[in-house]
Amino acid sequence: MPRTVDRAEQRRQIGAAVLRLASEQGLDEVSVRTVAAASGRSPGAVQKYFRTKDEMLSFAAELAGERFEERMAAVDTARPPREALRALVLATLPVDAERRAEAAAQLAFALRAAHHTELGAIRRRVDQEVREALGAWLASAGIGRGADPAADRLALADAVIALSDGLALRLLYAPDDREALLCALDRALDALIPPPVPHS
Amino acid sequence: MPRTVDRAEQRRQIGAAVLRLASEQGLDEVSVRTVAAASGRSPGAVQKYFRTKDEMLSFAAELAGERFEERMAAVDTARPPREALRALVLATLPVDAERRAEAAAQLAFALRAAHHTELGAIRRRVDQEVREALGAWLASAGIGRGADPAADRLALADAVIALSDGLALRLLYAPDDREALLCALDRALDALIPPPVPHS
Repeated sequence: MPRTVDRAEQRRQIGAAVLRLASEQGLDEVSVRTVAAASGRSPGAVQKYFRTKDEMLSFAAELAGERFEERMAAVDTARPPREALRALVLATLPVDAERRAEAAAQLAFALRAAHHTELGAIRRRVDQEVREALGAWLASAGIGRGADPAADRLALADAVIALSDGLALRLLYAPDDREALLCALDRALDALIPPPVPHS
Repeated sequence: MPRTVDRAEQRRQIGAAVLRLASEQGLDEVSVRTVAAASGRSPGAVQKYFRTKDEMLSFAAELAGERFEERMAAVDTARPPREALRALVLATLPVDAERRAEAAAQLAFALRAAHHTELGAIRRRVDQEVREALGAWLASAGIGRGADPAADRLALADAVIALSDGLALRLLYAPDDREALLCALDRALDALIPPPVPHS
């Protein structure tokens, strides 16, 4: 490794190897030893940047969360709300190899978060950020109903996040159901964000 | 163990120990050795019923699928469609210790299914059964719209399954968000199964 590659970049490279391994072989296979092999380093070189497996996993979970938010931020939300929301969900669904890798890693971290305090805290923080970003965007699109439109938007945001996670999970083990699952996404979005009633 | 306990019952007891371990400590911690300890057997006694870890996991995944379908079958679907569907989803969400254990095991199997052919096949079969049962039940409740009501019902069923899986995943690592997530469930069900328009 050239000496000019700094510590933050080394950590990111190792984090990327963790995500790749987690998505290809599952989180069980991630260890200092396997990550070292996958990233062309010695175990000692990995441990210079991450002392424990848990430290390495927390960093990779943060990295996956950042990528997820970058993908969302790249979506053009100036389109009609229903189309923009569909694009937001599609930006993270595992419908190609790269997003498949990210979704597999994200879901593996989420599940592990049930038993690991630090991963749980990271995951809850990312959820809150995504939820509030979605809520703000729904507000700017004029969506939100009832006596408390802000609460309505957050409920809508939580429903879309859950729908998206559930579809991602199933796409990972049932990639052939892709067409059916995209129909389900459209069916749900039609119901959640009904088109404006045409003036007659 | 008394000799009268037959082979099928032994396998079920070991399968139950797998589900318990998977939910309490995660699927990484499941091995012939840990399952033997958790079920009060020797590793050799466990291997009399399951030769490999994968065989043991496949059996436990089937068991979890059966429990899931039993919970669904126990729901009174004679209620109004929106209420019955809510009860169906709630029957499987991890809102108490027992369902938390089942949901954690189910989601762990689902994620592992992305990398394991046999678990993938089991999970896809269970999904198809749940999807068709939901579709048939939506038909009997008179739900289904557009040119192809049967396809519409399957899309609706897939959306509800995804929503339910996504909510279950988040409830596992964010149990304090329970109220917010039940609001999200209600918000989504209101949109997916709108109440009949009152006659004016």
